Amino acid sequence: MRTIRKKCAVLADHPAFYNTIIILIILNAILVGLETYNYIAENYLNWIFIADRILLWIFTIEIVIRLIGSSSVKAFFKDPWSVFDFVIVLSGHLLVGSHYVMVLRILRVLRVLRAISIIPSLRKMVNALLLTIPSMGTIMLLLGIFFYIYGVIGTMLYQSIAPEYFGTLHQSLLTLFQVITLESWASGVMRPILAEDPSSWWYFVTFILIGAFVIVNLFVGVVVNNVEEANREDTPSPTDIKLTELQAELQEVKELLKEKK
Amino acid sequence: MRTIRKKCAVLADHPAFYNTIIILIILNAILVGLETYNYIAENYLNWIFIADRILLWIFTIEIVIRLIGSSSVKAFFKDPWSVFDFVIVLSGHLLVGSHYVMVLRILRVLRVLRAISIIPSLRKMVNALLLTIPSMGTIMLLLGIFFYIYGVIGTMLYQSIAPEYFGTLHQSLLTLFQVITLESWASGVMRPILAEDPSSWWYFVTFILIGAFVIVNLFVGVVVNNVEEANREDTPSPTDIKLTELQAELQEVKELLKEKK
Amino acid sequence: MRTIRKKCAVLADHPAFYNTIIILIILNAILVGLETYNYIAENYLNWIFIADRILLWIFTIEIVIRLIGSSSVKAFFKDPWSVFDFVIVLSGHLLVGSHYVMVLRILRVLRVLRAISIIPSLRKMVNALLLTIPSMGTIMLLLGIFFYIYGVIGTMLYQSIAPEYFGTLHQSLLTLFQVITLESWASGVMRPILAEDPSSWWYFVTFILIGAFVIVNLFVGVVVNNVEEANREDTPSPTDIKLTELQAELQEVKELLKEKK
Amino acid sequence: MRTIRKKCAVLADHPAFYNTIIILIILNAILVGLETYNYIAENYLNWIFIADRILLWIFTIEIVIRLIGSSSVKAFFKDPWSVFDFVIVLSGHLLVGSHYVMVLRILRVLRVLRAISIIPSLRKMVNALLLTIPSMGTIMLLLGIFFYIYGVIGTMLYQSIAPEYFGTLHQSLLTLFQVITLESWASGVMRPILAEDPSSWWYFVTFILIGAFVIVNLFVGVVVNNVEEANREDTPSPTDIKLTELQAELQEVKELLKEKK
Repeated sequence: MRTIRKKCAVLADHPAFYNTIIILIILNAILVGLETYNYIAENYLNWIFIADRILLWIFTIEIVIRLIGSSSVKAFFKDPWSVFDFVIVLSGHLLVGSHYVMVLRILRVLRVLRAISIIPSLRKMVNALLLTIPSMGTIMLLLGIFFYIYGVIGTMLYQSIAPEYFGTLHQSLLTLFQVITLESWASGVMRPILAEDPSSWWYFVTFILIGAFVIVNLFVGVVVNNVEEANREDTPSPTDIKLTELQAELQEVKELLKEKK
Repeated sequence: MRTIRKKCAVLADHPAFYNTIIILIILNAILVGLETYNYIAENYLNWIFIADRILLWIFTIEIVIRLIGSSSVKAFFKDPWSVFDFVIVLSGHLLVGSHYVMVLRILRVLRVLRAISIIPSLRKMVNALLLTIPSMGTIMLLLGIFFYIYGVIGTMLYQSIAPEYFGTLHQSLLTLFQVITLESWASGVMRPILAEDPSSWWYFVTFILIGAFVIVNLFVGVVVNNVEEANREDTPSPTDIKLTELQAELQEVKELLKEKK
Repeated sequence: MRTIRKKCAVLADHPAFYNTIIILIILNAILVGLETYNYIAENYLNWIFIADRILLWIFTIEIVIRLIGSSSVKAFFKDPWSVFDFVIVLSGHLLVGSHYVMVLRILRVLRVLRAISIIPSLRKMVNALLLTIPSMGTIMLLLGIFFYIYGVIGTMLYQSIAPEYFGTLHQSLLTLFQVITLESWASGVMRPILAEDPSSWWYFVTFILIGAFVIVNLFVGVVVNNVEEANREDTPSPTDIKLTELQAELQEVKELLKEKK
Repeated sequence: MRTIRKKCAVLADHPAFYNTIIILIILNAILVGLETYNYIAENYLNWIFIADRILLWIFTIEIVIRLIGSSSVKAFFKDPWSVFDFVIVLSGHLLVGSHYVMVLRILRVLRVLRAISIIPSLRKMVNALLLTIPSMGTIMLLLGIFFYIYGVIGTMLYQSIAPEYFGTLHQSLLTLFQVITLESWASGVMRPILAEDPSSWWYFVTFILIGAFVIVNLFVGVVVNNVEEANREDTPSPTDIKLTELQAELQEVKELLKEKK
């Protein structure tokens, strides 16, 4: 049993193994891409189905090898990326033959995401991005309260004037998301409402001033800063290099002084 | 009297008290959300009214407790957030039974903002945002002069060509706000004017170059920088940590030298 | 003569003088604003004309006082803001009674810009902005070459397909400016062209990738950085404060060592 | 032979030579600009053709001089900008008389790009920009996977609802590029689809949240940071200047200590 585990561990770390999986993920990506063309999807349905089944089984074997090769089952499932790989492949088996064709196809597309779990530099970047989420709790909460208040007020005021934009609270929140991206906020959303309610400009102007100019930029600033910091940690700045040199020299001075004692 | 004050102070700081208020604010938020759905608003009008009255009275009691619990009435009203809570709740009482139904409903929505005054991390962030306002005085003044000059010139030149955009000074300023967000500035606003006045492009191009590319980005830069700085103050940078270490070591060297004297 | 110069210099620096001018600039701003309303412009034409004449003469007297009060005529005209004030007021006199009503009115609006030359903090910020222009020479040149090449190619390729956007080189450059602001670039400009020339997407996608994502952001980055740096110079960073302290302490150590010699 | 090489090297470095080439590039730029005006292109076709031939031959001579003047042929072709100049001019000769009129005209426009290879400050900036490309490998890969997955899913889901936007995988990717620039994403793309499939909002909202708010800003942040860093290297920050001073002083202290030994 032990030798099998060892062999699996060696195999899972082998560059050939790694490269094979990447090539298979690319093949999987090409396959789901080809499938979107109706002509191909209709004429080669069987071939695509078979290729997909083969890929799924190879991925299954790969994960089994990695699972056996890991020090323990617990250790394997501790890494969220392993769990992600496992779920993606397992759900492919569970849903086979089901009638949720669309779900199955989307699952097959999501297998392309396995590239992130396989390629170390991608995994590192996505990890850095995911790690910024907790530090954005406060800003997300602020954004949420801000959206909710404007959403409720917008629904109350413009429900009857512009039912396609502010008919229900759901629609209002979607419209506000459109407004915060500044897309057609004036030509599409505000000007028709302004024609009926001439004082409605304050609603949109304050929302954009606070939301699009301040909060969105804070949000973007936090994300970009955190990811940049995560990258910077590896390479010290010239200032820090100089400071380390200074520290070393000061240490020398101290030793010189102690020697003389 | 003193014991009551002390009891109130203890109560006001109690986590259970704090959590109850947060839950009630969430309830209040759900209530105003449900009210926007016509079906619910019509059939459950009485229930919503009663729930709203109860919430208002609980919030009143909460503020009275916090008012009594504070060291003095003056101390309570020194904190602008306490004043905000007080005004929000008081105006709810003053306007009850009045015919300004819309004003009352908006007041009820604004009570959700109390979440900011209650949750410390949110209050800190909003405080940081509000503190950036004075430091933006100059840029706001510059932006104001810039808008006003372009507004007056735009009204003078395009009043008759595009009355829906530049009919009056008010409309021009709103149109310029739309242009500075780059929304439909060409397809909606400039191209129809350009068809009548082929030299009008300079008006829009210079406005966007100066306004949208320079001043808006300065404005955003100042806001983001100030808030980031406010956050940074708590956690020293690695450079500063190293500098503090250096300072300590230099101190040691100095003491070594003095000892030998 | 000397006493007059001295008195003028004292007067020009007096806060009351300064405040009067600011109030008059605000009055001038209100006047040009009111003039845009047809109703007012028609009924109070004479009053506006008289008020404008009075303001122009007061500004003239102001500048004469400042001119006399300065150490020499040369010193006065060395400050570009004085030249600006001088030109704005002089051209008001030169064009009086001319038939270029629009030019005169725009001149009157531009007098509001005098607020920048009068208010020190505004002048400082605008100076900082103007000082960034030379450092942007290279990026402006790059942007110019980039626009010109895409403009010529766009005119060559899409002249006959979309004459309203790419009819002449002038129109192409304006359209590219619209595209770089990302306004209706797809819905308005690209999609109709794409219907005729299915390979035209590369023209727009590469232009946006290079122009809007890279060059515009470089441009904005340079402007914001330069202005922020100009502001920062006044207040040293905490890192710099600590470094100055370190330097002082090291000086002490050195002196201690020298003493013992 | 050697003397010719020396003379060519001296000539190629002469300011007059450099200025002549710049003037000729500007002339070339004006020529291709004039050619876009149908009236000029039709009436002066021969003159433009002759001027173009002359310019091409002068550029050829220039490159031959620089080629001879360089220490070796290998050294000349090591500089990618020399290769670029060589290819641009050579292809002008190869395609002469061919029927690919459009290709020839575009080649003539691209000769304006030679300004970048000639003007040092431009070349430096473009080099800095090109050097950021390798460091963006990971983010480009992430963006690619992100686009591909959303492209395939979009085609699968909305192929029949909005064939003009999501008809084929190619069209979907172009539409997603439009959406990531936030251009008409709601008014043009999402709202018509939303009318048929009310749950489609999640597709667009998540794409914009991840793509436009996070990944695009990361991409822009990396580009701007890298170019700014390339510029900064030349001028040390005040912090670094102070650190160098500190280091020098510490060196003095060390020497003082050693002397006493």
